[in-house]
Amino acid sequence: MSFRFQIEATDGLARAGRFFTPHGEVETPVFMPVGTVGTVKGVPQDTLEELGVQILLNNTYHLYLRPGVETVRELGGVQKFMAWDRPILTDSGGFQVFSLSDLRKVTEEGVSFRSHLDGSLHFFSPESAIAAEIGLGADIIMAFDECTEYPAERARAQASMEMTLRWAKRSKEYFEAHKEEVPWFREVRDSPFALRSSPDERLGEQSASVGKQKQVPRGLTSARDDNPDLMAHDGTAEAVPFQSNSEHPGSGEERMANGEQREGQTQAIFGIVQGGTYLDLRRESAERTVELDFPGYAIGGLSVGEPREMTYEMVNAAIPHLPVEKPRYLMGVGTPEEIVQYVARGVDMMDCVLPTRAARHGLLFTSEGRVTIKNARYAKDEGPLDPRCNCKVCQRYSRAYLRHLYSSNELLAQVLNTIHNLAYYLDTMRRVRQAIKSGEFAHFLSDVRPPQLSVP
Amino acid sequence: MSFRFQIEATDGLARAGRFFTPHGEVETPVFMPVGTVGTVKGVPQDTLEELGVQILLNNTYHLYLRPGVETVRELGGVQKFMAWDRPILTDSGGFQVFSLSDLRKVTEEGVSFRSHLDGSLHFFSPESAIAAEIGLGADIIMAFDECTEYPAERARAQASMEMTLRWAKRSKEYFEAHKEEVPWFREVRDSPFALRSSPDERLGEQSASVGKQKQVPRGLTSARDDNPDLMAHDGTAEAVPFQSNSEHPGSGEERMANGEQREGQTQAIFGIVQGGTYLDLRRESAERTVELDFPGYAIGGLSVGEPREMTYEMVNAAIPHLPVEKPRYLMGVGTPEEIVQYVARGVDMMDCVLPTRAARHGLLFTSEGRVTIKNARYAKDEGPLDPRCNCKVCQRYSRAYLRHLYSSNELLAQVLNTIHNLAYYLDTMRRVRQAIKSGEFAHFLSDVRPPQLSVP
Repeated sequence: MSFRFQIEATDGLARAGRFFTPHGEVETPVFMPVGTVGTVKGVPQDTLEELGVQILLNNTYHLYLRPGVETVRELGGVQKFMAWDRPILTDSGGFQVFSLSDLRKVTEEGVSFRSHLDGSLHFFSPESAIAAEIGLGADIIMAFDECTEYPAERARAQASMEMTLRWAKRSKEYFEAHKEEVPWFREVRDSPFALRSSPDERLGEQSASVGKQKQVPRGLTSARDDNPDLMAHDGTAEAVPFQSNSEHPGSGEERMANGEQREGQTQAIFGIVQGGTYLDLRRESAERTVELDFPGYAIGGLSVGEPREMTYEMVNAAIPHLPVEKPRYLMGVGTPEEIVQYVARGVDMMDCVLPTRAARHGLLFTSEGRVTIKNARYAKDEGPLDPRCNCKVCQRYSRAYLRHLYSSNELLAQVLNTIHNLAYYLDTMRRVRQAIKSGEFAHFLSDVRPPQLSVP
Repeated sequence: MSFRFQIEATDGLARAGRFFTPHGEVETPVFMPVGTVGTVKGVPQDTLEELGVQILLNNTYHLYLRPGVETVRELGGVQKFMAWDRPILTDSGGFQVFSLSDLRKVTEEGVSFRSHLDGSLHFFSPESAIAAEIGLGADIIMAFDECTEYPAERARAQASMEMTLRWAKRSKEYFEAHKEEVPWFREVRDSPFALRSSPDERLGEQSASVGKQKQVPRGLTSARDDNPDLMAHDGTAEAVPFQSNSEHPGSGEERMANGEQREGQTQAIFGIVQGGTYLDLRRESAERTVELDFPGYAIGGLSVGEPREMTYEMVNAAIPHLPVEKPRYLMGVGTPEEIVQYVARGVDMMDCVLPTRAARHGLLFTSEGRVTIKNARYAKDEGPLDPRCNCKVCQRYSRAYLRHLYSSNELLAQVLNTIHNLAYYLDTMRRVRQAIKSGEFAHFLSDVRPPQLSVP
């Protein structure tokens, strides 16, 4: 098995657990930061590791256009390409094709579109999209779907859902026939970085403060991954509450040691539930996608302009028809308050550009509510951005300084703001997991929700 | 004494030593990265610490305009403002007034100019410029000078030099009368950041991977600073070679512990040698500036468009007339090859925007020569940017990835490129210091210079 999911605790509909991928394990519920073209904008990978990011999302559409699938494939896949030796998930490109590109034509066969970069003409079918995702080599890939627009008439939503189901079947068939083409399927070689001799030796000089980030050669034994207590039975969920001793899975170095275990492993492909804003279509889409038997299921086509209450309804409609033992991924959501609510409905995975994009626009999430950092009231504010946050931004810099950076249009504003917002999301998820495991999730929900929602 | 300089080794005209400031010590020869508006563009302060940056330069002109001197003063000075508890040097604003602003009028009294930001009208005299520098509170500040343009007729260069001498005298007189107004002169309070209780306790949760960057409360004893072997005699240089055991002065945490020692300390003001491109004027400017008795001397008005050989000549002309026991600061230079040459001529301190600005434009300095990272030849290059560099960029990322980031106009390109170029400069200076101390500087010069200069 290349992909396993285990539930370690439940609290109401909320579940806490973990899944295992060729590039390491991920604790759920998890928020996946978006690294569109192979980078979380402005944040170095070691900082993402320090933040406790367990899995990133990359966009197939963007990487397909630049640097191109073949380049990434030749370089060993997205993980090696971006020097991120933890799990990555790629979307199928469907959403971007419909939202970003100059869309030319949608047929049963697929979608022709023009690049938003240079206007060049391209074509994605379920087969070619999955081929791209296999070439990129993320640990989890998504079936090629049509993201139904909002609002959509019922007939349109139904037809779109039907096509997504047919495309899901084609996606899976192509994947099964080609899954061994993933770049790291036969990965045995070490990283060229790990093989280089120590720069200290070459330079013949002390450099203690600079050499801290050295990578550890692959192939070392990771105690954690050999621990049978952490292993799930093949593909079957353990609904028995399991109290993990650690909120923090393997460090970067420990994870780097997993290289040789990837040999013979393949990606996991998730199906996507569509159905617009129609409860019965959502239910039907869920049931029929599950019949295709994927190792995980996403709920797509939400948070595309519909009222938030409607989003909740659609999630509520789909969840009961997804198998309890498989991970559920709600795509493209949400605010810090919302992601907690989705967890309460049984969602295990989420991604959203909100924390990173808002950060670049000076909108910061804190335990005291939203902070628009450009506000003049912060000009002489010596306090930390969020006094309850332990991220390296809040531990070091004042609101006055962050306000100055943003007002001066300094690069560092985007870097630091992004680090904080990600820390806030990741910390929220850490607390969510802890609350579920300790059976206090209902209390957690009622405790944190009102003050956060009351802030404009 | 608030400022001390000691020479620990010499090799030809080159000197290795260190100076002590209210915010810590600095090993020389030193390259000072430029943090114009209180930030080295794109690089968080903890990364600068990891790189071994010992002192930063801030621009008075920029900080005066935004966020304003009063704001920085109220926040405790530039070090606290930017959460950088190591030494900072500010220029006087003279260079920027002449190069960046819409210059209105230069009189004996001072300079009126319009802000490059909003066109607002401002006036800098030697007195008001020094008042601004005192308010900002850098450890080393520069006298207000006129940066003579290139080319300049002899009469013009001489008149400009004479005015700079009169302005130097006024700068020093104002400084002596007001030096106790520096924000940290009576600094006894702890940082509000250090006083906060542990976020871990408040959140009631483990957070080992996120909490690494916690600051240490000020007031702890630093063993290094109590070590009498490292202390210079008051203001007098020790020309006796001194072999330091460490290339790395106190860590951030150790330096943070110096807070209480700042009470009663003041800034150091350096004079600036001008004289255009006339050897006799350079000599005269040096001699007459030295008569004003500053704790250190800068050579200004160079690297402003003149041929490089002429720069060397002007440095050669000024150096012999500067006191051997005071630090010499060559302003606004240079390439990696050039800074080594200036050290060979007796320069102790340098600053330049080149490594940071070039990085943002994709021009990278490596042991194998210049790399223009956007070049298509790097598209599938799995190797590190510089195989001999131990910075965290070269230890982790491939040229292919850096090329992709730059080609995609990603923020992270500017961040990582800047980190590498700074590492290259700082590593060069580390090796320079080591070579001087081991008496191998001449060999170092002949060894590294030709291959580096031969690269386009």
